Amino acid sequence: MRYSENIIEGRNAVLEALRAGKPIDRLFVLEGAHDNALGSILREATAHPETKVSFVKKERLEELSETGKHQGVIAYSAAYTYATVEEILERAAEKEEPPFIFLLDGIEDPHNLGAIIRTANLCGAHGVVIRQDRAVGLTATVAKASAGAINYTPVAKVTNISRTIQELKKAGLWFVCADMDGEVMYRLNLKGPIGLVIGNEGKGVSPLVRKSCDMVASIPMKGDIDSLNASVAAGVLAYEVLRQRMMP
Amino acid sequence: MRYSENIIEGRNAVLEALRAGKPIDRLFVLEGAHDNALGSILREATAHPETKVSFVKKERLEELSETGKHQGVIAYSAAYTYATVEEILERAAEKEEPPFIFLLDGIEDPHNLGAIIRTANLCGAHGVVIRQDRAVGLTATVAKASAGAINYTPVAKVTNISRTIQELKKAGLWFVCADMDGEVMYRLNLKGPIGLVIGNEGKGVSPLVRKSCDMVASIPMKGDIDSLNASVAAGVLAYEVLRQRMMP
Repeated sequence: MRYSENIIEGRNAVLEALRAGKPIDRLFVLEGAHDNALGSILREATAHPETKVSFVKKERLEELSETGKHQGVIAYSAAYTYATVEEILERAAEKEEPPFIFLLDGIEDPHNLGAIIRTANLCGAHGVVIRQDRAVGLTATVAKASAGAINYTPVAKVTNISRTIQELKKAGLWFVCADMDGEVMYRLNLKGPIGLVIGNEGKGVSPLVRKSCDMVASIPMKGDIDSLNASVAAGVLAYEVLRQRMMP
Repeated sequence: MRYSENIIEGRNAVLEALRAGKPIDRLFVLEGAHDNALGSILREATAHPETKVSFVKKERLEELSETGKHQGVIAYSAAYTYATVEEILERAAEKEEPPFIFLLDGIEDPHNLGAIIRTANLCGAHGVVIRQDRAVGLTATVAKASAGAINYTPVAKVTNISRTIQELKKAGLWFVCADMDGEVMYRLNLKGPIGLVIGNEGKGVSPLVRKSCDMVASIPMKGDIDSLNASVAAGVLAYEVLRQRMMP
């Protein structure tokens, strides 16, 4: 298992963790308790929509507590062991398949990230590369949205996606990114060792990353709005790669 | 615009709306206020993960208030005008296209519903049919996740999906549902007037609805886990329909 959870107990520890921006996924608070410290904790938690708050009875807190010193509040935070890009390539080599890697250029929504890792697992990709800065990391929400895929599909974190693309090109990969003004994906040759680049929910693929790609694929758009949900777009494009790999 | 928001002001009105299970999307509460009524409202809101709570200053509440009598709390609930199945068919006729309709057999997650409406809009479908009972309806979260598609793509609510399938068969539609043990979707003929049936996130397509379908399509699964996210699966299958319609 690459993924696990840490428990944080007691008012100060929980408040500090929240203020330090540590990703808190679940917060259990003693039912009916009212005081300033708990008030501050609840206000901080409200500012983090990812934190799910539950008001529970004393017995439940005591069941959950590992230290016995919960002071009316227990928090869970996520911990995950990242892979390296090399490990992802090794995984393809072990399976004797041409590498198929997802590169996420700044996905921000944890549900999207989880759904994309889930898709990567099911369409036969060997791993997912995410960006270190600002983009969402691997939290409990991501783990849950991935439906367990996070334990099977390695995720690597890099500082610079376009540098990683340059390195992977030396390993023989071709890169395709999704963008509106590209060639219709059905007409591109997406077989062979490939990196699939998915842009940010609002801003799409950044200019430098786009320039590093060998192909720009467009998903046909027949409607009134601008773009698909990022995880749906990733799924549609990934399955076009799989279709081309599977079908003669 | 098919979609709008209602404002509910004052402690009793908001508490009653929450207790009645009315979908409250946003809740604004006076910062620093502590009393039993507000405590009850916050506890009710916590039990509805869709409700986004913000603590705001008095000035902000007064800006938002329409009645001037907010008593420290203002809630927003969603309102939407549903279409009929007939209107969806008329839309296809107007565009002189073979009907292409999504039927959702119990989608529960508002982000999934929004993303699916977004996909329906972009892949050229003429409308979406949802189930009345228990499944999620059109809330502000759905509207937001649809990225505006909710204002273009008609959504009809029916009591019984398999009865609607029987009726639409008389209009010449064929029905395909997604399920693991079906024929690989690339090998099915998905051209012509078609209804795409998407099952519940956990339980899939219900047995009766499945029996009403003419074809069962499977999305290839090359990984370790069971299934794609429901909105991703809908997108992958919908774009296979579009590919077959577009490509010779």
